[in-house]
Amino acid sequence: MGGVNREETSARRRRGLGATPAADRAPWHPRRLRDLLRLAVADRQAIDADGLLPPENELMDEFSASRTAIRDALALLVDEGQIERRRGQGTSRVASYIVFDIAVPGPQDIDEYRRLTSGVVPRLLHRSWTPAPAPLARRLTGVATGEPCLAIEYVLNARNEPIAVITNYLRASEGEMVAEVPFVADFYTFLLDAGVDIADQATTLQARLADNEVAPLLDVEVGSPVLAFEQAIRNGRGEVVDVALGVFRDDVRMTASNFVYRPPG
Amino acid sequence: MGGVNREETSARRRRGLGATPAADRAPWHPRRLRDLLRLAVADRQAIDADGLLPPENELMDEFSASRTAIRDALALLVDEGQIERRRGQGTSRVASYIVFDIAVPGPQDIDEYRRLTSGVVPRLLHRSWTPAPAPLARRLTGVATGEPCLAIEYVLNARNEPIAVITNYLRASEGEMVAEVPFVADFYTFLLDAGVDIADQATTLQARLADNEVAPLLDVEVGSPVLAFEQAIRNGRGEVVDVALGVFRDDVRMTASNFVYRPPG
Repeated sequence: MGGVNREETSARRRRGLGATPAADRAPWHPRRLRDLLRLAVADRQAIDADGLLPPENELMDEFSASRTAIRDALALLVDEGQIERRRGQGTSRVASYIVFDIAVPGPQDIDEYRRLTSGVVPRLLHRSWTPAPAPLARRLTGVATGEPCLAIEYVLNARNEPIAVITNYLRASEGEMVAEVPFVADFYTFLLDAGVDIADQATTLQARLADNEVAPLLDVEVGSPVLAFEQAIRNGRGEVVDVALGVFRDDVRMTASNFVYRPPG
Repeated sequence: MGGVNREETSARRRRGLGATPAADRAPWHPRRLRDLLRLAVADRQAIDADGLLPPENELMDEFSASRTAIRDALALLVDEGQIERRRGQGTSRVASYIVFDIAVPGPQDIDEYRRLTSGVVPRLLHRSWTPAPAPLARRLTGVATGEPCLAIEYVLNARNEPIAVITNYLRASEGEMVAEVPFVADFYTFLLDAGVDIADQATTLQARLADNEVAPLLDVEVGSPVLAFEQAIRNGRGEVVDVALGVFRDDVRMTASNFVYRPPG
């Protein structure tokens, strides 16, 4: 595509990149262009105060792409439910995200963490002492198959919408510590309020479809994509004190690099 | 449910947990039981040499659950495509996983990392110098909008199956380093072979559905769940030298706690 090559040539000339290896001069593929437009939508920096994306001409300029390429990429984002396009009204962003971090807050981060998670409210579904089946016993340090652990299943709400369904399984020693503690914010806060030592965590993630067990709890259609996770929460001695299993809705962007829960934006 | 309470009582008696707070004595909910059976299937430790799960009686015993509860939970896993049940032949596991770790290998881990990723083969889709649009310029350290970056899009194959479609965008300085280097294993190996300094990374993950752009590349149906990610790879000075955007298939279990790629199991 002309736009790409022109831009590239002038940029290379500006930076004196004559040694840059010769490369494919193919035009933007709608798939890659869509990925970058999706980033722009997620960043919100490409969006004006009315929630509108820039007009096609500006996008063509910013992305060095033809009108056709921009339109094809925007069409993919419409199909995905990220944006809406209305003739004469421009392109508006319809998807919004909640950024959720799964890292355990360090001691120096706790005040900030509590402030940032103050908008998170759990809705308890179930709480019971349960004999640990083998898959839990393998994960919880020092727990043998059949020994009791405390199961706590809840829906996590943010900005009054359900964003996750999670079950935590606590070892008996930690389960007993939380007995009298109100569970009113996120689970880490709950454990910290109970005086449970939590130092770090490890998580495994996988894509899955919401089935008729979780879809109503998350207020989504059956067949919506969800982010399924398995988590081990460890204390300062490296013992796994809690195993969490759950699913997050597809409007949650999960990170593990910062401790913070950032309010919807 | 009887089973749960009996097991729990005897386990508590064994451990002298008389002080364990009184808790809900509700029977296993199929949703939670399914989650734990799914773990057992993923672990493979619950599966015999023929790939079969234990018979219902054994599962009832291990999970302290009624036959009805076990059957309901297994039915959910059948719907999910995790297992198959055939009358007279038992329950077999049909899903298998690839464990993929996104952490950057440290210097002391590189030999082990190379050995473990030797089964990963990329199939190049596209490679070109591209003027960075604003969302990339915001992420790549020291890159202004319109300056060139090297786009490398590929399908990642493991055990001869596509598991991911990924585009990496490298800064010009690092892009030039990889010019003459063959891209034949995973992307970290490619960067390391080129002498690029990579120290750590940060990733954001989100559930999404495969559309008709990525489904054929991943050999899945349109509407299958995928794990979408955005990644920043940093050098030892904390500069973002590479941004990766991509999707992983739903049989990939992604971790960030270890550096290893573990072969399918």
